Amino acid sequence: MLDALREKVCAANRQLARSGLAVLTWGNTSGIDRERGLVVIKPSGIPYEQLEPGHMVVVDLDGKVTGGELRPSTDTATHLVLYRAFEQIGGVTHTHSRCATMFAQARCEIPCLGTTHADHFYGPVPVTRPLAEAETADYEANTGRIIVERCANVDPLAMPAVLVAGHGPFTWGRDAAESVRNAVALEAVAEMALGTRQLDPRAPELEAYILEKHHRRKHGPAAYYGQA
Amino acid sequence: MLDALREKVCAANRQLARSGLAVLTWGNTSGIDRERGLVVIKPSGIPYEQLEPGHMVVVDLDGKVTGGELRPSTDTATHLVLYRAFEQIGGVTHTHSRCATMFAQARCEIPCLGTTHADHFYGPVPVTRPLAEAETADYEANTGRIIVERCANVDPLAMPAVLVAGHGPFTWGRDAAESVRNAVALEAVAEMALGTRQLDPRAPELEAYILEKHHRRKHGPAAYYGQA
Amino acid sequence: MLDALREKVCAANRQLARSGLAVLTWGNTSGIDRERGLVVIKPSGIPYEQLEPGHMVVVDLDGKVTGGELRPSTDTATHLVLYRAFEQIGGVTHTHSRCATMFAQARCEIPCLGTTHADHFYGPVPVTRPLAEAETADYEANTGRIIVERCANVDPLAMPAVLVAGHGPFTWGRDAAESVRNAVALEAVAEMALGTRQLDPRAPELEAYILEKHHRRKHGPAAYYGQA
Amino acid sequence: MLDALREKVCAANRQLARSGLAVLTWGNTSGIDRERGLVVIKPSGIPYEQLEPGHMVVVDLDGKVTGGELRPSTDTATHLVLYRAFEQIGGVTHTHSRCATMFAQARCEIPCLGTTHADHFYGPVPVTRPLAEAETADYEANTGRIIVERCANVDPLAMPAVLVAGHGPFTWGRDAAESVRNAVALEAVAEMALGTRQLDPRAPELEAYILEKHHRRKHGPAAYYGQA
Repeated sequence: MLDALREKVCAANRQLARSGLAVLTWGNTSGIDRERGLVVIKPSGIPYEQLEPGHMVVVDLDGKVTGGELRPSTDTATHLVLYRAFEQIGGVTHTHSRCATMFAQARCEIPCLGTTHADHFYGPVPVTRPLAEAETADYEANTGRIIVERCANVDPLAMPAVLVAGHGPFTWGRDAAESVRNAVALEAVAEMALGTRQLDPRAPELEAYILEKHHRRKHGPAAYYGQA
Repeated sequence: MLDALREKVCAANRQLARSGLAVLTWGNTSGIDRERGLVVIKPSGIPYEQLEPGHMVVVDLDGKVTGGELRPSTDTATHLVLYRAFEQIGGVTHTHSRCATMFAQARCEIPCLGTTHADHFYGPVPVTRPLAEAETADYEANTGRIIVERCANVDPLAMPAVLVAGHGPFTWGRDAAESVRNAVALEAVAEMALGTRQLDPRAPELEAYILEKHHRRKHGPAAYYGQA
Repeated sequence: MLDALREKVCAANRQLARSGLAVLTWGNTSGIDRERGLVVIKPSGIPYEQLEPGHMVVVDLDGKVTGGELRPSTDTATHLVLYRAFEQIGGVTHTHSRCATMFAQARCEIPCLGTTHADHFYGPVPVTRPLAEAETADYEANTGRIIVERCANVDPLAMPAVLVAGHGPFTWGRDAAESVRNAVALEAVAEMALGTRQLDPRAPELEAYILEKHHRRKHGPAAYYGQA
Repeated sequence: MLDALREKVCAANRQLARSGLAVLTWGNTSGIDRERGLVVIKPSGIPYEQLEPGHMVVVDLDGKVTGGELRPSTDTATHLVLYRAFEQIGGVTHTHSRCATMFAQARCEIPCLGTTHADHFYGPVPVTRPLAEAETADYEANTGRIIVERCANVDPLAMPAVLVAGHGPFTWGRDAAESVRNAVALEAVAEMALGTRQLDPRAPELEAYILEKHHRRKHGPAAYYGQA
């Protein structure tokens, strides 16, 4: 069963690269087997086009490597904090995609300006506070902690993205593939928000009732997007 | 004969994806058989690279599915309103293409700043009003209705595009393929208008007589663009 | 011998499409056989991927079609005016490439802000005046005439580009392939100029002595760029 | 052994073209064999897709061609100055990549606004002064000299990039391939900085302790990025 997860996580990482979101080796996707409490993640610093399922690294929720011969992504500890805090999620993706990173660097939320955004993210995409100097000691885990701090009281599947201030986006979903699709959607809505505010710095946020409507078309019991 | 339409609509949807206008599954193209009153449209939420003619869904002008085994696009009701109102058109395309969506989100017309625009759109591309809260009840059909409201007294083949406020563009044409070409043209003129106004916020609209000249080069009895 | 020119012009048109400068069918390249006074040009409205040498149209310098079975590009009369006025040139390319068209629509010269520009264009790239209403009668030829008017007293091989106000760029060169390379260079320097002025609206023009140096590295008797 | 270097330098040049950083023939990569004091570099003006290892040119550190049948890149003298001044480096890349060139033309440093930047460049990427008129006499070598002047007292592997005012970027690294990866990283951080400052002209520089942390994750004895 872990073999199936390795294949899915490998495929999701390759999809991430094909989507143009990950320059060089900047980006990583993981998936979790909740029953066993094991996470499968991309190895650190390996080019995407060379990735095969056998390269994937298996770690437990405390970060102990239990399978694979390579070092896991340096961002593994961040992924693990998210899996421990957000029990509904099955996959996590981190990128430095261009426009989402611009918002992260400007330390601005991505405002919800249209239905493209509403279809994927239920309101403005939040930004964390910066890490304090003392928090660099346990850097990757603390990056996860400020995400969880920022997303307290938020349904992680209704807002499956966050921007880490001065760093870049993390997205998640029900599985690894969905976390990649959310990374793609995030980049698109960030680019559109940038251009919309260039056209009109006071462009209004989407009407709350349209946000509600689009969210419910795709999420929850009354969803009617896609196939049954 | 419906088989031929399925093939054309499938090919138009695949062309839409190849043109880079449709991220993930955000976009759909349909075509109509006016004699039978049947519309062929992309199924909802299926990746473009997997689309085959047999996946296309057939609906009548009241939205009743009469062929195909999948659910039609969630935007089907919008397409149907357009086919009922604009009798000259044979194809409709909806996308969330980047720059056209920026204008839709900023709720700005796309001004006619050059001959690229004039070749395809006879004047500024209009924007609808936002939907009222009560109109979310019959959301997709009402999206079509505010388009028709905005385009009243406009020749739909002279202005084959509209921006839905806070949402994105719809385009149409004599058939499905032409509606896709108009979506491509719309995205290009939107990107150019954004950059032109960045260079000079007071860049002038194209002279009316040049708009007229370019429109008549491609449209109407004296057209001389393309092959006979 | 005209067969060789047909092949070169066809290849140059396909290169134009591969370079990403020509959306849909917006762009055309031609080449001239000066000895015979015959111009080979792309047919009107044919998709680039279908172009074959046999589709190319042959016209004399007065615009009479002397070979080929298709209609020539609607812009043929503009090309012919340029060939008659600029005796040194052997190829002409017209596009609606994104950033060059933004400058044409803003009716701004492209300032020479760096050596990329200096390597190809000896100073700011000029913009024509708009056509007067009466000039729409013989529209394509008059487009050529306002280009020639604007480029009077300019060496066409030192400044192988112009922007037609409200329309887009024309480039030329010693042959069809070089006119395409100049179209590629023009688009790149337009994009860079747009971004440079976004970073600093008062970014300075390149020092005149650096412009001179780069121009002479690539052009004239002391050129030392490329192979002997 | 020089054959191996020819292959690596050829592959690095082809990688440069595939990365989309080099339009037409604008860009070149070299590598050095420190034991023999020989530099292998791209020939001048040859299209990337035609490059083969046998086309690479070998020059000594004084610029004398000692192998290969083609002329070396016109920028060879600049590369040689860098190899002589920066003893730790093994490869050099020059491009006119879009966003890095915008900063070079605006004569602005690229500020360090996020961890993407910090992972590759230890602080703001510097800009040279413009060349003086007298310095155009020995143009390419003097371009190298103003780079070295600007980078005095800087560890070239901690800051493996510079912008030449009014021209474009040079990057370097432990070998040719790393100099290309740094060119890719530089373009990405330049694009992100441009967009970040568009969102907020006062977006803050990255906290110094985060810069320090990210730098040490990838560089120096305590680095833990990538495989052992």
